[in-house]
Amino acid sequence: MSGSSFGKAFQITTFGESHGPAIGVVIQGCPPGLPISQALIQASLDKRKPGQGPASTKRKEPDVPLILSGTFEGKTTGTPLMIMIENKDAKSRSYTDIASIFRPGHGDYTYHQKFGIRDYRGGGRASARETAARVAAGAVAKLVLDPYQIKIQSYTIALGGIQSTCFDAHAIEKNPFKCPDMEAAKKMEKKIETVKSQGDSLGGIVEIKAMNVPAGIGDPVFDKLDADIAKAMMSIGAVKAVEIGAGILAPEMTGFENNDPLTLNGFASNHSGGILAGISNGDEIVVRVHVKPIPSISKPQKTLTDQGVSTTISTKGRHDICAIPRINMVCESMLALVLTDHILRQKTLGQKFRPIF
Amino acid sequence: MSGSSFGKAFQITTFGESHGPAIGVVIQGCPPGLPISQALIQASLDKRKPGQGPASTKRKEPDVPLILSGTFEGKTTGTPLMIMIENKDAKSRSYTDIASIFRPGHGDYTYHQKFGIRDYRGGGRASARETAARVAAGAVAKLVLDPYQIKIQSYTIALGGIQSTCFDAHAIEKNPFKCPDMEAAKKMEKKIETVKSQGDSLGGIVEIKAMNVPAGIGDPVFDKLDADIAKAMMSIGAVKAVEIGAGILAPEMTGFENNDPLTLNGFASNHSGGILAGISNGDEIVVRVHVKPIPSISKPQKTLTDQGVSTTISTKGRHDICAIPRINMVCESMLALVLTDHILRQKTLGQKFRPIF
Amino acid sequence: MSGSSFGKAFQITTFGESHGPAIGVVIQGCPPGLPISQALIQASLDKRKPGQGPASTKRKEPDVPLILSGTFEGKTTGTPLMIMIENKDAKSRSYTDIASIFRPGHGDYTYHQKFGIRDYRGGGRASARETAARVAAGAVAKLVLDPYQIKIQSYTIALGGIQSTCFDAHAIEKNPFKCPDMEAAKKMEKKIETVKSQGDSLGGIVEIKAMNVPAGIGDPVFDKLDADIAKAMMSIGAVKAVEIGAGILAPEMTGFENNDPLTLNGFASNHSGGILAGISNGDEIVVRVHVKPIPSISKPQKTLTDQGVSTTISTKGRHDICAIPRINMVCESMLALVLTDHILRQKTLGQKFRPIF
Amino acid sequence: MSGSSFGKAFQITTFGESHGPAIGVVIQGCPPGLPISQALIQASLDKRKPGQGPASTKRKEPDVPLILSGTFEGKTTGTPLMIMIENKDAKSRSYTDIASIFRPGHGDYTYHQKFGIRDYRGGGRASARETAARVAAGAVAKLVLDPYQIKIQSYTIALGGIQSTCFDAHAIEKNPFKCPDMEAAKKMEKKIETVKSQGDSLGGIVEIKAMNVPAGIGDPVFDKLDADIAKAMMSIGAVKAVEIGAGILAPEMTGFENNDPLTLNGFASNHSGGILAGISNGDEIVVRVHVKPIPSISKPQKTLTDQGVSTTISTKGRHDICAIPRINMVCESMLALVLTDHILRQKTLGQKFRPIF
Repeated sequence: MSGSSFGKAFQITTFGESHGPAIGVVIQGCPPGLPISQALIQASLDKRKPGQGPASTKRKEPDVPLILSGTFEGKTTGTPLMIMIENKDAKSRSYTDIASIFRPGHGDYTYHQKFGIRDYRGGGRASARETAARVAAGAVAKLVLDPYQIKIQSYTIALGGIQSTCFDAHAIEKNPFKCPDMEAAKKMEKKIETVKSQGDSLGGIVEIKAMNVPAGIGDPVFDKLDADIAKAMMSIGAVKAVEIGAGILAPEMTGFENNDPLTLNGFASNHSGGILAGISNGDEIVVRVHVKPIPSISKPQKTLTDQGVSTTISTKGRHDICAIPRINMVCESMLALVLTDHILRQKTLGQKFRPIF
Repeated sequence: MSGSSFGKAFQITTFGESHGPAIGVVIQGCPPGLPISQALIQASLDKRKPGQGPASTKRKEPDVPLILSGTFEGKTTGTPLMIMIENKDAKSRSYTDIASIFRPGHGDYTYHQKFGIRDYRGGGRASARETAARVAAGAVAKLVLDPYQIKIQSYTIALGGIQSTCFDAHAIEKNPFKCPDMEAAKKMEKKIETVKSQGDSLGGIVEIKAMNVPAGIGDPVFDKLDADIAKAMMSIGAVKAVEIGAGILAPEMTGFENNDPLTLNGFASNHSGGILAGISNGDEIVVRVHVKPIPSISKPQKTLTDQGVSTTISTKGRHDICAIPRINMVCESMLALVLTDHILRQKTLGQKFRPIF
Repeated sequence: MSGSSFGKAFQITTFGESHGPAIGVVIQGCPPGLPISQALIQASLDKRKPGQGPASTKRKEPDVPLILSGTFEGKTTGTPLMIMIENKDAKSRSYTDIASIFRPGHGDYTYHQKFGIRDYRGGGRASARETAARVAAGAVAKLVLDPYQIKIQSYTIALGGIQSTCFDAHAIEKNPFKCPDMEAAKKMEKKIETVKSQGDSLGGIVEIKAMNVPAGIGDPVFDKLDADIAKAMMSIGAVKAVEIGAGILAPEMTGFENNDPLTLNGFASNHSGGILAGISNGDEIVVRVHVKPIPSISKPQKTLTDQGVSTTISTKGRHDICAIPRINMVCESMLALVLTDHILRQKTLGQKFRPIF
Repeated sequence: MSGSSFGKAFQITTFGESHGPAIGVVIQGCPPGLPISQALIQASLDKRKPGQGPASTKRKEPDVPLILSGTFEGKTTGTPLMIMIENKDAKSRSYTDIASIFRPGHGDYTYHQKFGIRDYRGGGRASARETAARVAAGAVAKLVLDPYQIKIQSYTIALGGIQSTCFDAHAIEKNPFKCPDMEAAKKMEKKIETVKSQGDSLGGIVEIKAMNVPAGIGDPVFDKLDADIAKAMMSIGAVKAVEIGAGILAPEMTGFENNDPLTLNGFASNHSGGILAGISNGDEIVVRVHVKPIPSISKPQKTLTDQGVSTTISTKGRHDICAIPRINMVCESMLALVLTDHILRQKTLGQKFRPIF
């Protein structure tokens, strides 16, 4: 079934395995006439590239996006865009030892149960490498969002249990964790070094915001904007929880505290995270995702073989210590895809986006 | 677009407004030959009925489900089931004063922006009343789950900031909050009384579990089982966060701590919440939803009219103080719908569900 | 699966059996603010009503459309419209004799094979009665088409082997067969009387046209406008062939003869039927459907019981002698649904409909 | 929107333009464990290869299918298959003269109106070259059909107005038109030579049959098996009419003549074309498609430029004289795709395919 497709008006379909010949995406519903280039896609891909910080794998993928359809003379034509990324640095030999062992925390066992066959090399289809296709698609989505001045930004508010305690927008690009708190970033770095030396790994929390989203997008009652965002984020392998606005703090407030009063200057607070009854209210969209630690660790773990025999595994491949900050760009891309889909959907209703206040 | 439909193989489409003539659901893809009756649907609906505890509205809806298609001689026929619930107790006069005022925390403003017209009576399409249709559909879904011995249970682990601190399965049905901790339940009751007297409202946290789900369901990479569950839960109006398994605790663990070792007796822990790489692993599916306080409160709040004039509103209608415990049954129903959809989808692959360990 | 849904941006989902409590339709994606009333739907339903000519059944269904959701104060709200028609004149006793016999030409045998259970009363879900729901939906679709001045008209060009040999637009509403040739209509009437007295039935050919369809609608490559029209028409029970434009005459022409030259006054001919490469070209959309004779006949026919025993059947129920002219309105409605869906879809591309020449 | 996708359980998404870098297809829902190879896909592609008869273009495309995902060690894995065909022989210079001229009978004008931009080289996305991706997908679909012993065969029953008057199965592969009548084939060849010398082109009629399709597939009421077949066939560029079973002859029969009596040896006739009420009845599926003459002709035709100026065009590119016999393989592939989709869909209902008689 269509489980590798996402979106309705702006729909992406990804394909490819970690160690197959290529991964990629087909994008349907992209409006015609948008300026597109390999460089534009490349710029987004570079933001999720491995090897950029202490938490990253040393796998060196150039990740060159080949735009193989849907464009003409530098513009989108309205027909399906296919963007492919060849797998250049796939060393399959690193993985043959796990052909018959289920790695804890990975999809090895579940793919085995579901399909009865699995491409064990690098996690196959379950590899985080698939998210490169999402980022490529997100770069195209942003072309649709640009005329609305919609900006999407992500940053790290926790890593390995260390919280960022302040928000300095300038700090985000100045440390390898996209953390808005330079002091916290330093602690994160130390934590990573310690954990790395123990052959272990870490998780964290990423916040993603979208500014200038017009009020009125999102579709009752199942395709609510927050419902689609929740699916988008939870479909990223390492994500275990998704919050919108006040999120996990909402249950502790009373209605009076939680409700955002409407004023002539806009909403007086933003506990809703910019979404009411599944529809954007013009305020900032605020999303938080909780990222589990990378399951691939060199520290030995107990597990089973596919023959049901107890064994121990120590993962030797090249892996990140933490999905952050590479996952941040994936989250931004997924949010861009949801917003683009719903903006195009809104057009079918023939309603103009109106000034908010 | 198809925003009121959910599921692919087992697909529901809901319709109806709070104060229109009726609400209901069309169910497509239900296998033929299943025993069905009004009583069976009624039993599920009764579990989300209002007026059953101190937190509930006094609106008295008999909520009688009329099965108007898709059955013959007490069995499903494989054609679309339509189940309709007439709105009997809709007092529209209670709502005319809010025709031109945007209630904070509600979809009034966003529906206005999206559609340019809205049925303001009782929240119209955005009313929680729509969830009765989901519960009716969930009752049908459970017929598909029954042969697998799949059981779904929900309980309240927090309400108004009060946490349940132990788990007594017998307690759940012995207090009006479905709380597994009788002591906590008592505190919740007091908290509700206090807040009610202040004209305010409360939120809470619900945990939902599914037992005996076979390993192998869920569809890479966007229709992951957890992604679809996240969407299902977040599509419920009051939900602001969704967790799977360890959820918000996962980011604080290391990979070694978080990974669930496979043993000859099954997984040694269940931080994954029964889902790895988006596919069930045979362990318990564990979901938590964070429910915001009911936005309708009698305490006066600042807001705007649809003409952009500042005003104050005090909601007078009959409303719950807390969405819990009525939302619990909605969560169970949504989980049943997701599991049913994915079990039917799995059949297209021709794979047998295999014994887990 | 979603086999009872049709359309993507403007999507209908029908439900109901011939002799169940009701049939109906849920419409998703209808733009808000359109004026709607029961009378408007009724007017369309009246055009497919039985009992209006010599070819029609005497089943008397008032077919009153109840609009149960999606409207407020006489306008669509953008939320799902549910329109229900109660089955008032369902005499189930007429059908019990066929509970275990497969009627030739009907879906009895195939429903039995597909589902293992079937509602045999009046054909159940396979009854032409289901098309009333399509006509109700078509009436709503036409509200979307109205601002474009799109007009849809159907007429009968053959019945029982008698061809209409001229086109007199005024004649269409002056005879009970919607035939544009009064002389042919008289012959059709005689033919029907003869065949009726023999306990047999007839088929025919209907042509449907849509005028003022803007150029540019239809979606490459599978959702071509003509592909979706073909599906729409072939999904009507009695239809065995669908032609677009020159249709079955196209294979006998050369390219030079068949190609429609573009001139400053528009296309010099319309062999394309208004569709090139699956996209409307601004010319008239021309569709022809070939309708098989009604399978229910009183003339005895050989068949089998569901126990595999040879038997003879003579259908006693109230049935039309010919699906024409009642099917004409169904064809018009299906064309309206396809056009509406594609007009809304086109809006997602952000392109203006441009003047044609 | 998802206009380049087809199917629900077994879903294909094609991409690519005639003169872009590549065309291809992503296949979702293919069951795991099926033996697959480049050679298998190649064998199907070779059957639609150009340059194999007097009616064919001289464009020489090796059409090598690269399977870039979804397989492991020679078997399908259940994840998306991506099959890509690079465009090797795309001489863009042949097409620059038509950059601003609308070719009659082609999609040039309609793509211009729809998208405001078009890849004019070789028809871009509207090129018949896109059908190579369908044939590749059809080869995969046949892997699913094989265990059912389902066989699909097509042959030419008319070309350029010349009808085949007998059916000799052995003849089909012995002439370049897949005609089952060797005498007719000879006349077709002469007709083609004549018309070719006049710079003109021809159309024809293809019949496609599927044997051993189990009774019970097809989904009421819109996704009827015949409705989906009609869409599948009409989505092929040159097709202007689709018939099922008796097709255009059905309207001339009475009900008694047209109904297929059920006997202990199966249906006594097959006017239904193997489909009743949209569901297969176990008999041969019989489809006929009416193919228009190739619009690209060297004979001068009147048309307009995209500036609205009258002009004359004479197509110089390499083109077929007739879409037959290359289209035959495309029709077979589309039928295979529809059958595969519906066989997988039927599995969700949990019904066994039962012996027919």
